Amino acid sequence: MDKIPVGILGATGAVGQRFVQLLADHPWFEIAALTGSERTTGGVYRDVCRWVLDEDIPESIGEMSVRESDASLPARLLFSALPTRAAKSLEPVLAESGFVVCSNASAYRQDPDVPLIIPEVNGDHLALLERQKSNRGWRGLLVTSPNCTTTGLVMALKPLDQVFGVRQVFATTMQAVSGAGYPGVPYLDIIDNIIPNIPGEAEKIGQETQLLLGKFEDGKRMPAEIGLSIQTNRVPLFDGHTVNMSIKFERSPTPDEAIEVLREYRGSGGTAELHSAPEQPVLVRLEPDRPQPRRDRGASKGMSVTVGSIRPCPLLDLRMISVVHNTLRGAASGSILNAELLVSKGYL
Amino acid sequence: MDKIPVGILGATGAVGQRFVQLLADHPWFEIAALTGSERTTGGVYRDVCRWVLDEDIPESIGEMSVRESDASLPARLLFSALPTRAAKSLEPVLAESGFVVCSNASAYRQDPDVPLIIPEVNGDHLALLERQKSNRGWRGLLVTSPNCTTTGLVMALKPLDQVFGVRQVFATTMQAVSGAGYPGVPYLDIIDNIIPNIPGEAEKIGQETQLLLGKFEDGKRMPAEIGLSIQTNRVPLFDGHTVNMSIKFERSPTPDEAIEVLREYRGSGGTAELHSAPEQPVLVRLEPDRPQPRRDRGASKGMSVTVGSIRPCPLLDLRMISVVHNTLRGAASGSILNAELLVSKGYL
Amino acid sequence: MDKIPVGILGATGAVGQRFVQLLADHPWFEIAALTGSERTTGGVYRDVCRWVLDEDIPESIGEMSVRESDASLPARLLFSALPTRAAKSLEPVLAESGFVVCSNASAYRQDPDVPLIIPEVNGDHLALLERQKSNRGWRGLLVTSPNCTTTGLVMALKPLDQVFGVRQVFATTMQAVSGAGYPGVPYLDIIDNIIPNIPGEAEKIGQETQLLLGKFEDGKRMPAEIGLSIQTNRVPLFDGHTVNMSIKFERSPTPDEAIEVLREYRGSGGTAELHSAPEQPVLVRLEPDRPQPRRDRGASKGMSVTVGSIRPCPLLDLRMISVVHNTLRGAASGSILNAELLVSKGYL
Amino acid sequence: MDKIPVGILGATGAVGQRFVQLLADHPWFEIAALTGSERTTGGVYRDVCRWVLDEDIPESIGEMSVRESDASLPARLLFSALPTRAAKSLEPVLAESGFVVCSNASAYRQDPDVPLIIPEVNGDHLALLERQKSNRGWRGLLVTSPNCTTTGLVMALKPLDQVFGVRQVFATTMQAVSGAGYPGVPYLDIIDNIIPNIPGEAEKIGQETQLLLGKFEDGKRMPAEIGLSIQTNRVPLFDGHTVNMSIKFERSPTPDEAIEVLREYRGSGGTAELHSAPEQPVLVRLEPDRPQPRRDRGASKGMSVTVGSIRPCPLLDLRMISVVHNTLRGAASGSILNAELLVSKGYL
Repeated sequence: MDKIPVGILGATGAVGQRFVQLLADHPWFEIAALTGSERTTGGVYRDVCRWVLDEDIPESIGEMSVRESDASLPARLLFSALPTRAAKSLEPVLAESGFVVCSNASAYRQDPDVPLIIPEVNGDHLALLERQKSNRGWRGLLVTSPNCTTTGLVMALKPLDQVFGVRQVFATTMQAVSGAGYPGVPYLDIIDNIIPNIPGEAEKIGQETQLLLGKFEDGKRMPAEIGLSIQTNRVPLFDGHTVNMSIKFERSPTPDEAIEVLREYRGSGGTAELHSAPEQPVLVRLEPDRPQPRRDRGASKGMSVTVGSIRPCPLLDLRMISVVHNTLRGAASGSILNAELLVSKGYL
Repeated sequence: MDKIPVGILGATGAVGQRFVQLLADHPWFEIAALTGSERTTGGVYRDVCRWVLDEDIPESIGEMSVRESDASLPARLLFSALPTRAAKSLEPVLAESGFVVCSNASAYRQDPDVPLIIPEVNGDHLALLERQKSNRGWRGLLVTSPNCTTTGLVMALKPLDQVFGVRQVFATTMQAVSGAGYPGVPYLDIIDNIIPNIPGEAEKIGQETQLLLGKFEDGKRMPAEIGLSIQTNRVPLFDGHTVNMSIKFERSPTPDEAIEVLREYRGSGGTAELHSAPEQPVLVRLEPDRPQPRRDRGASKGMSVTVGSIRPCPLLDLRMISVVHNTLRGAASGSILNAELLVSKGYL
Repeated sequence: MDKIPVGILGATGAVGQRFVQLLADHPWFEIAALTGSERTTGGVYRDVCRWVLDEDIPESIGEMSVRESDASLPARLLFSALPTRAAKSLEPVLAESGFVVCSNASAYRQDPDVPLIIPEVNGDHLALLERQKSNRGWRGLLVTSPNCTTTGLVMALKPLDQVFGVRQVFATTMQAVSGAGYPGVPYLDIIDNIIPNIPGEAEKIGQETQLLLGKFEDGKRMPAEIGLSIQTNRVPLFDGHTVNMSIKFERSPTPDEAIEVLREYRGSGGTAELHSAPEQPVLVRLEPDRPQPRRDRGASKGMSVTVGSIRPCPLLDLRMISVVHNTLRGAASGSILNAELLVSKGYL
Repeated sequence: MDKIPVGILGATGAVGQRFVQLLADHPWFEIAALTGSERTTGGVYRDVCRWVLDEDIPESIGEMSVRESDASLPARLLFSALPTRAAKSLEPVLAESGFVVCSNASAYRQDPDVPLIIPEVNGDHLALLERQKSNRGWRGLLVTSPNCTTTGLVMALKPLDQVFGVRQVFATTMQAVSGAGYPGVPYLDIIDNIIPNIPGEAEKIGQETQLLLGKFEDGKRMPAEIGLSIQTNRVPLFDGHTVNMSIKFERSPTPDEAIEVLREYRGSGGTAELHSAPEQPVLVRLEPDRPQPRRDRGASKGMSVTVGSIRPCPLLDLRMISVVHNTLRGAASGSILNAELLVSKGYL
């Protein structure tokens, strides 16, 4: 199979760099274009990019030129790591021009005709693209992936929701510093400290969770009717978002029943053959001191969410904790998995 | 006023050292004895103590001898920083011998005739000492101070409970490493990481909270009927425990009403004249990114609890966050304040 | 004595905030003016300043207006925390207008007629002000304080240099993150990491050390003829710069002789009565695992340099380690001490 | 080729766990035995081992039994991660019984008939085994690998020593916490701090460096005549030891000449075919802010040492900085590479 030429929008930022790193050797995709801001356009990637990842810039990519995000990009598929404002203006233009845009930006995640997708959770929501096509008249497509913390919350809830019906969730997040991008949080603000209330984060998580766990019926996406109370905190660690939850179900499971359901979960149909899909979207740890972000974020190359500490809740039904790798499954890798789903479903 | 001679039980441990530091210049108390384990007894404090606090051993204390925890101690008041097992066996013996024991250990916190006290919150529970006296026949007394995290939770809840009646609390804690004592947590376990489920902690916090917020009526202490769901986490910071809460009240306050009540709170009668009591037991911060443990733990020399991020809860009534200095108000300073209360109430 | 009205130039930056904090209750000085950049001028300090210190803005200062750095400032003495470029253009103008300027900026530290002063080390270099006066024709004065790391190095070397004659120094620095200002170093760059070669730092340290240890003779300042090889590193800690040194002397002392000299050192004449001067400019610790930045940076309210690990060097004469509080003695407090020296010497 | 059955001595400690992890899928070796202390002997590895590495225990190893370190072990080759005292008594006994022992312990590193080996640096020192054989009359062999910091220092110096002749080295180390084993350093001691003078470390580094850079002539190992002044520091990071050096040579190279020699270095003959050998033992980075431990420790799977910041020294000839992965090349992987060398040279 010939590799599909892809472009990375906003390739010089922290998430853009992750796309570069993950796509440099991808068996289905080939990096054909990198775009940047006004400042970096026209430059050589290696020179204009303040590379922040620990591994070096892939050899083959360093010498590429940085281009504008316009219709001339020599690609069929675009991964968007654009800042919100740029995503807002550029993503529709590019989708209209005929590109398939897989976006990690938040600008369109909640639009009623833009699928917000985690393949194992709600791949069927891609059917919204019919509506997108007819609404917008675009020659291309726009598909989004959720916020990093939403991903860790929803992947842990979905298997249980299917079987027991989630009704209410109290969630407290402890989010790693890399979730704030680069340069992001100054060392002096976060060392030996916690910063509560990441601006806008709780709202995003709540709304996205309801969309992702919602049903797609009769050509429409119905947000799930789940009550959510979310508190967010930035904590001094590098990678890996942790969520403590208390959950109320329609039918209350025992911890053992919940564990069994989580362990048997393989996601909705058609994801097993995707290149980046983990064997198990959710891993369960039984040790009382797990999950831990440093020890669990890397599970299945950062693609599995790890759930543990599953215990009864004295006030609702169950408590549990999930850990997700926020810059892999929760960001770049999540969008790449969406693109793989689009390929496997024939959208490209 | 002549200073009261006091002893510190378990003076070589981390909490014991805090007692040493705080009492070295106390205007009411004078350190007259330090006790240690079998290994350290007989040695000079400076030599046998692996001092872990950042400031040096107070000059006047370094040359004292370390003694056994027995009836011969030249003191009237004893502060106990003993490990649980030693506290279990030694504290009653010493109280029986006639000492007033103010303990920071957890061994007797839940005994029905042992007061568990935060002066501003439930100083009236000292009345339990009548029962202790008649039950036990001791010539001395035993009074305990609560767990560090309980302290941060209860001091934030008490003012609201008085006015609006707390019914349910979901609480997620983020606890500093110093709460685990010394040597405590290895750097390799906690750096770039979070460890969930501090063993036994959630249970302690729940039970102590119900005792502290309980009423004392007709010579009896009635635990408060508050539903509590608590999840605990160790996070990589030095000092300062943070608690995220969602609260249900009998009469739901607006955030502004809650803020007003918290701001006006001065604690129950008779604490204003205590040497270590802060002007305000609870401080409220209105900035959206507060409280923060590093910036708020030191408020009022570590004696005030700081509350902030007071917002409506989508599922219950209110959410808020508290920060407490776990080794000051939440440990040694808390016990010292109890001792000051005993002095002011004439128990010494 | 009436307090001297002082202004703080660049009061909204990290060093400017330290000046605010340290001067709010100073017995000799009274904050009469705060200046800021174009962006903040005209605003209320509390509103326009992104306050980064852990303790709150002093009540009395928060409501002051931020002004321009011009000749109309209602002060006699100005503390400069300006960025280099602004210092370059503004400090001479203000000195010309008649202000006494005590600068923490590096812009003029190496000018031949601008004293670079650590009071205990080279207070006699103030005599350069004669030359400054005649050269420049200013109505005011400009005096500078050295780089934070230089301070820790020079204060440790000076007592030994006086007695044994320092000839060569190999120094490796491990510098705290607060030395880079605010926002300074992103958490993602420095956590679990070291960044070598702080730009321009080694050169500054070398040149300033030679000036500070130089002699003032016949109206001229002669740089010391000391060979210096300096390597600088940024390490993940909050405050406190550590320097490892190997030293060659004219007359080689034993470690015990060096310890004695350091311990007896009280600085050059006339500093004992300065308000901010520590009793001992240099403290010696004999424990093999000292000095440590977290445990020693606060010595004498951050005004003493702590020296330890004094041992023979297999290749030169002695090795030792110094720790300095980089934002106190090494920055704002250092400049304040200079101002106190100017007052005591009658320059104000 | 049939895999060689190997045993891991001290398999439950931190270095022992690294051996387990690295050998679980090794193409030449097969783990046939794990040994532990009295406490763990007889137990199942998964149960008795407090596993501290971030990745899980390899499936195939978790169920193995932990045995005593005695002559009955079903292996030909033993990797020793024993504590010094146990290594002292057990390693000779096991070598005498016929095992080939590759030790990471320090007990015998300086014995005159025990090779201390870094394959690329001094593989020829294996010839000492002749002398070992005749001296000791053992049926097996004992070969050691150096201290983690020594490894980073020596691998950086060797290429330059060969060409320019190293005469003097001033070295200051900044060593990661994992170098102290598990549980090792308490978080409370090292966070926001530096601890100088790691006990015994400077001496070890000095002596081992002279052995490793020494010549083997006429059946004898002659320590190199290099003057060394070494200061050691523990700094708050996880993995990766950094060394700042100033070097004097017999023939002084320019920085460019040094860079060229380091870049062309491939190690002494016969290591290219070893399974774990990196393509280049030494990597050079030209960026002014490299090497950095977090970004460079993982180079070549942790087997290359990274050198950078190569500049003239104002007092000697050159300065430079090296970074080594202390628990891979500097510990377990180093010993495994030694074993591979023994296999390739026909000693097994």
